[in-house]
Amino acid sequence: MSGEFPRQLHLNINALHSGFVPSAWRVPGADPRAFIDVDHYVRLAQTAERACLDAIFLADNAAISDQLDMRPITALEPTLLLTSIAAATTHIGLIATASTSYNEPYNIARRFATLDLVSKGRAGWNIVTTADLPSARNFGLDAVPDHAQRYARADEFASLVKALWNSWEDDAFIADKASGRFVDLGKLHPAAHRGRFFGVQGALNLPRSAQGHPVLVQAGASGDGRDLAARHAEAVFSASQSFDESRAYREDLNARAARYGRGPNAVKVLAGLTTIIGATETEALRRRDELVDLIPWRYSLNRLAGTLGVPVDSLSPDKRLPDDLPLPNNGNGNHTFFNATLAQARAHGYTVRELVRALAGGGGHRVIVGTPEQVADDIAHWFENGAADGFNLMPDVLPDGLEAFTEGVVPILQRRGIFRRAYEGDTLRSHFGLGKPAGHAAAREAA
Amino acid sequence: MSGEFPRQLHLNINALHSGFVPSAWRVPGADPRAFIDVDHYVRLAQTAERACLDAIFLADNAAISDQLDMRPITALEPTLLLTSIAAATTHIGLIATASTSYNEPYNIARRFATLDLVSKGRAGWNIVTTADLPSARNFGLDAVPDHAQRYARADEFASLVKALWNSWEDDAFIADKASGRFVDLGKLHPAAHRGRFFGVQGALNLPRSAQGHPVLVQAGASGDGRDLAARHAEAVFSASQSFDESRAYREDLNARAARYGRGPNAVKVLAGLTTIIGATETEALRRRDELVDLIPWRYSLNRLAGTLGVPVDSLSPDKRLPDDLPLPNNGNGNHTFFNATLAQARAHGYTVRELVRALAGGGGHRVIVGTPEQVADDIAHWFENGAADGFNLMPDVLPDGLEAFTEGVVPILQRRGIFRRAYEGDTLRSHFGLGKPAGHAAAREAA
Repeated sequence: MSGEFPRQLHLNINALHSGFVPSAWRVPGADPRAFIDVDHYVRLAQTAERACLDAIFLADNAAISDQLDMRPITALEPTLLLTSIAAATTHIGLIATASTSYNEPYNIARRFATLDLVSKGRAGWNIVTTADLPSARNFGLDAVPDHAQRYARADEFASLVKALWNSWEDDAFIADKASGRFVDLGKLHPAAHRGRFFGVQGALNLPRSAQGHPVLVQAGASGDGRDLAARHAEAVFSASQSFDESRAYREDLNARAARYGRGPNAVKVLAGLTTIIGATETEALRRRDELVDLIPWRYSLNRLAGTLGVPVDSLSPDKRLPDDLPLPNNGNGNHTFFNATLAQARAHGYTVRELVRALAGGGGHRVIVGTPEQVADDIAHWFENGAADGFNLMPDVLPDGLEAFTEGVVPILQRRGIFRRAYEGDTLRSHFGLGKPAGHAAAREAA
Repeated sequence: MSGEFPRQLHLNINALHSGFVPSAWRVPGADPRAFIDVDHYVRLAQTAERACLDAIFLADNAAISDQLDMRPITALEPTLLLTSIAAATTHIGLIATASTSYNEPYNIARRFATLDLVSKGRAGWNIVTTADLPSARNFGLDAVPDHAQRYARADEFASLVKALWNSWEDDAFIADKASGRFVDLGKLHPAAHRGRFFGVQGALNLPRSAQGHPVLVQAGASGDGRDLAARHAEAVFSASQSFDESRAYREDLNARAARYGRGPNAVKVLAGLTTIIGATETEALRRRDELVDLIPWRYSLNRLAGTLGVPVDSLSPDKRLPDDLPLPNNGNGNHTFFNATLAQARAHGYTVRELVRALAGGGGHRVIVGTPEQVADDIAHWFENGAADGFNLMPDVLPDGLEAFTEGVVPILQRRGIFRRAYEGDTLRSHFGLGKPAGHAAAREAA
């Protein structure tokens, strides 16, 4: 068996509509309708599959929560989009985000189990608790539920979804035409759950898939988030800004997972990474500057002011941020990520304009600007020295930023022997090196 | 333009896993895994599309609510299944069932809008309130909410979903690269709704589709159900047992719709119809008997006893039902349908065994057993004399019962000039002869 040694890198494409940079839709050749074009997403997945990437990852938000007057947003429902992609691909994993705050466990268990069956074992669920106010206001609330409550609900939700996914023993489905026995109901295990947030009595109405059940993904950054990841997640999408921060995060997560009785490397850490690639470093920097110059200033200032919690008038593009401005901290992971960049800006004495440029107009994910070799070196350094098990790639512009990666960076990683040249299995679990979850029969034997 | 005259028949295929008859999975050649096989559903849709049927219709239930030990159930989530089908077809409409009792309006509006965009205007939503106890128990309840409350919630839910689907004016999406303006937020109309059951503040995060928005479908049988259909539905799936009952139902529905200010024929009535087709009537009857004989007696008796609300021991296969047995009436439309068959059984003095045979093991939808000519005659009679605008077809066994219909019955209907030989449009609305809903700009001009 291959795949045991050497340790292999994992790469997801985070297919953010026109690309990570808010101006991506404005570049020559870009189709502004990409955010509502299923064929755009299908082509991205096919490009990623040709390069043997682990998975396509889709974010989600059930609201208009960015400045839609100036840029596209996450719009199409991701489990449906991935079902379209499943029909047009054969191997690549399919990870969709869905909120535990604005859904019901039975519905989510069933929708992801359907995706897992339809794709023959390629589904993953990215668990989010959803921290934005516009979403809360679309689901009967006037304010975002507090952090601890969101995470308590997410924990109960995820446990229930796993119980539902495992509610059929693998030999429960008989389908014996002669006797007329279809399913052995004695091998179904109803959830029989009454908890703080949910009551679910029945078993799922679907058997398990080729990979057992979907892979659980999470993006825990706060303490509660890390604990949720340590308990449930098999892969995390992190947003560490620096090598040291990422290595410390990975070690902390593994330590927390161990406290829940999970083995070493039970949770794969995939760091978020935006790439802006050019044939030379100068070309890459020019590309970055051109993209940033296409972002309306009003957009960047609104976003920065909103994140900092200050009036937009208080920010002057050519002045530094006030030194006494408190860093935002509402316990939300995204702001934690943002703070790192802000601290970096202070250390370097950036003006507001320079800070916006360093963020590439984004919300704080790490950005590498450089040649394919520079990107590959950075990835290999993090991977080989314990800062990450892989990366959740957010190319600047799609599809061409992805093509620059698959054509330029992937071959270098393959030559280094840290990334596959062909898929070794057919399921997302096989790509991530995860075993098939035991399910009920084995659990009972072990008990 | 064609399609105005003569009036055209509408035909949906209700793709019930292995087929309507509970023993369908046991016939030679049937694949018992069909209920979880996306390719099975894709092939059904392709067969239906070759015959120019209006739509594929998928039922739904978020629970195990039939005797799964002896037969398949509705299992895969239907909006995902239809997304797979959208990728493999070009014209046929795609109608999925979703419950207003166990979902949130923003999620449903968004999922169906996604299906509508992905399929380029072919989606429909079948609104159900979900009356079974196992479903209630999967969503935190100990009992099914009462009929009036379910329908009040459904009414508010459907109004909200329509408001969300219409929240973008058709020219709100600008995408002007030069100016950097993406969407004109002044042409978005947030739901701004605080009601009895729901609060939804925002606009949908998606623009309208090629057909405006998905077609609304319903299956109202009770008074509340008919009012919901009269207010919101553009097509109803009825379960009338007789010509007279169906004509009276259609007239009643049109009269109710008129009271809501809707024009004549605003609601297309599609009658549920199970077909058991043979080259001769004798062959068809033999096929019926063979299928019924394959249904375990325990299944049929449990089902009959459950519907009647009597202990299973009280039913003797070779005796008539007690004359003093009250007909079940809990206000649920399905029982109304069942009652008609039961009354017919009494009139003819059927034994329990004969009653089960007349039901073809099912729950009371009308069954025609006969040759293609007999089926076509029956359909034409109902259609031409005002008892139905079309039919929701539930073939005995799938796929071959559908093939018997498309190869045998459809050509006869085409020769009679009441069914299309080619699609005249690309959207579900065009197949149903429905206009594009006005949306917000036109609504304001009219005000």
